[in-house]
Amino acid sequence: MNWKRNWEGINLPTNENYKLSSWISEKGPNQEIVLSSRMRLARNLEERSYPNCAGEKELNEIIELVKETASHQDDFNLCFINIQELPEVERQLLVEKNLTSPAHIKKRMANGLLLNNKENISIMINEEDHLRIQILLPGFQLNQCWEKADKIDDIFENKLDYAFSEKYGYLSTCPTNLGTGLRASVMVHLPALNLTNNINKMLEAISQLGLVVRGIYGEGSESAGNIYQISNQITLGNSEGEIIDNLKSVTTQIIEQERNARERLLKEQEIRVRDEIMRAYGILKYAHKISSEETLKLLSHVSLGIDMEIIDNIDSGMLNELMILIRPAHLQKNEGKALEPQKRDLKRSELIKERFN
Amino acid sequence: MNWKRNWEGINLPTNENYKLSSWISEKGPNQEIVLSSRMRLARNLEERSYPNCAGEKELNEIIELVKETASHQDDFNLCFINIQELPEVERQLLVEKNLTSPAHIKKRMANGLLLNNKENISIMINEEDHLRIQILLPGFQLNQCWEKADKIDDIFENKLDYAFSEKYGYLSTCPTNLGTGLRASVMVHLPALNLTNNINKMLEAISQLGLVVRGIYGEGSESAGNIYQISNQITLGNSEGEIIDNLKSVTTQIIEQERNARERLLKEQEIRVRDEIMRAYGILKYAHKISSEETLKLLSHVSLGIDMEIIDNIDSGMLNELMILIRPAHLQKNEGKALEPQKRDLKRSELIKERFN
Repeated sequence: MNWKRNWEGINLPTNENYKLSSWISEKGPNQEIVLSSRMRLARNLEERSYPNCAGEKELNEIIELVKETASHQDDFNLCFINIQELPEVERQLLVEKNLTSPAHIKKRMANGLLLNNKENISIMINEEDHLRIQILLPGFQLNQCWEKADKIDDIFENKLDYAFSEKYGYLSTCPTNLGTGLRASVMVHLPALNLTNNINKMLEAISQLGLVVRGIYGEGSESAGNIYQISNQITLGNSEGEIIDNLKSVTTQIIEQERNARERLLKEQEIRVRDEIMRAYGILKYAHKISSEETLKLLSHVSLGIDMEIIDNIDSGMLNELMILIRPAHLQKNEGKALEPQKRDLKRSELIKERFN
Repeated sequence: MNWKRNWEGINLPTNENYKLSSWISEKGPNQEIVLSSRMRLARNLEERSYPNCAGEKELNEIIELVKETASHQDDFNLCFINIQELPEVERQLLVEKNLTSPAHIKKRMANGLLLNNKENISIMINEEDHLRIQILLPGFQLNQCWEKADKIDDIFENKLDYAFSEKYGYLSTCPTNLGTGLRASVMVHLPALNLTNNINKMLEAISQLGLVVRGIYGEGSESAGNIYQISNQITLGNSEGEIIDNLKSVTTQIIEQERNARERLLKEQEIRVRDEIMRAYGILKYAHKISSEETLKLLSHVSLGIDMEIIDNIDSGMLNELMILIRPAHLQKNEGKALEPQKRDLKRSELIKERFN
């Protein structure tokens, strides 16, 4: 394991060979609707204070224990990133790539991240829990996520004493993470359900099935660009298999409904939908400044246009990358300096034009 | 004079050699702000009932008198168009080219139009008055309009007995046309005064100078695309020279203020204005359907962009033509059949795309 890798070694837009995390840049099954799948396990160490109560010394000991464990396996090529050593913009980059959480990078002592080269395994140390093992894969791949997460979990469980109770399962600071500690989620893109005004009905139905719907940036965030994160609400009382099966089955239904809505749109409202898609394309191609919210909205239309074969000169993979590259920290990293929001709106439209031409 | 020319002979979009009236397709001074200049003389014949009171027989006699007079001069190459013989769409075409008025084409008996080949002289017969002599020139050319109008007026006055009183000047059905019977007007394009929120103050000031501001289609119409028609309110009590001088002086000030506003916009709000212009361009280029109102609004931005040298691959003359070609009758004539409004929105965007590429 290359412990020397630090924040300077993270792939960043300024690197000539910059590539985004593989969950963003690679393709996956059903990706025209399911952008990505994620599995997250919350784990805590026995006889250690939870991160929010522990002092710096104890937190550092936890980091060392975790690093030590990780160093004894080479399968996943994990590297350690010391969050405390990262400049603000680099921390934000990690959040924008969904490799860590806003809460994690806000902490002002003793926390870190284990990350593999493909950036589809990310293990937060001392976030809300001692360990948060996260797997991210492109498209609809919940089983593959789970297999990977389970394998990594075993590596740590073999070496570390996890806090575990027969009654409550894996213990956690937050009761919603008790039991399996598993949060399985999919990021879905539902423009047609939105355009046919069926989205709210659908989201309501989802929340009655023990699932939670969130916006693109996770907890507490608004939906932007018709993208929703759907995850299990309860981690206690169901097995990992049940949790994953439930999410899989609901996601399969969502895919079907979105697909039907797209077909219906093309059949019943082709002119309107073609117009909205082409206008979105025209604005993205020519706007001189643009906010990230508007960009996501318009990219959503263009992405629908590609799926409907209305637009054929744009690659859907490029669009997925653009959804990340237009975020504030990525824009600033790309420029090599801090940018005011207004300046970012200019750079964002430059970047989009560059990619669209 | 070629009396055989009838509505089939009017230049129409379906003709391969179709060209619009010269006041639209040719260039004139200050045309980036003053689209066109117009002079209109209202004249009535002595001892004849006004058109709204006259019977068909008398109206036909008037037409014959006017045609007979026109046939004795060859300078202007005037041709007669019998409005009653025109299909509805051809009547609308004449209105869309500003060669006649909506009231004139609505009449159901004995009216007509004398039109020259360049379509910059149009003489309505039996509109509200027996004769309405109209000259249209591109850009800011009020004196040239007046010279032409005066010359044509002389031709008719030499042969026909005009209704004239020492006290009230040329007599007319409407008191606002008494005196000189002269309505001088300019069509101005004021996007920058609008974008800098100075347009209402300016229009208010204009109306206090004895001038009237109207929308693009004349009396009672709303402004669209930042285009305003400015004309004299009063025809009685001022000489033709005074009326024209007043309008010229006000127009000169409007040109200066719009020019200043454009410079100020570029200096103080370049990003915003560049963004609005380029978005308008992108939408026009890619929309799948578009209303005429939105088209005029967006063309106004693109036209400003050309003047500000933000857009350099579009010809301003083409834009001026497009403002006419996207109107309902032109679209229908171009298709060779009647089109529902929704269908027109599709054809309109096709036409724009064709011209923009």
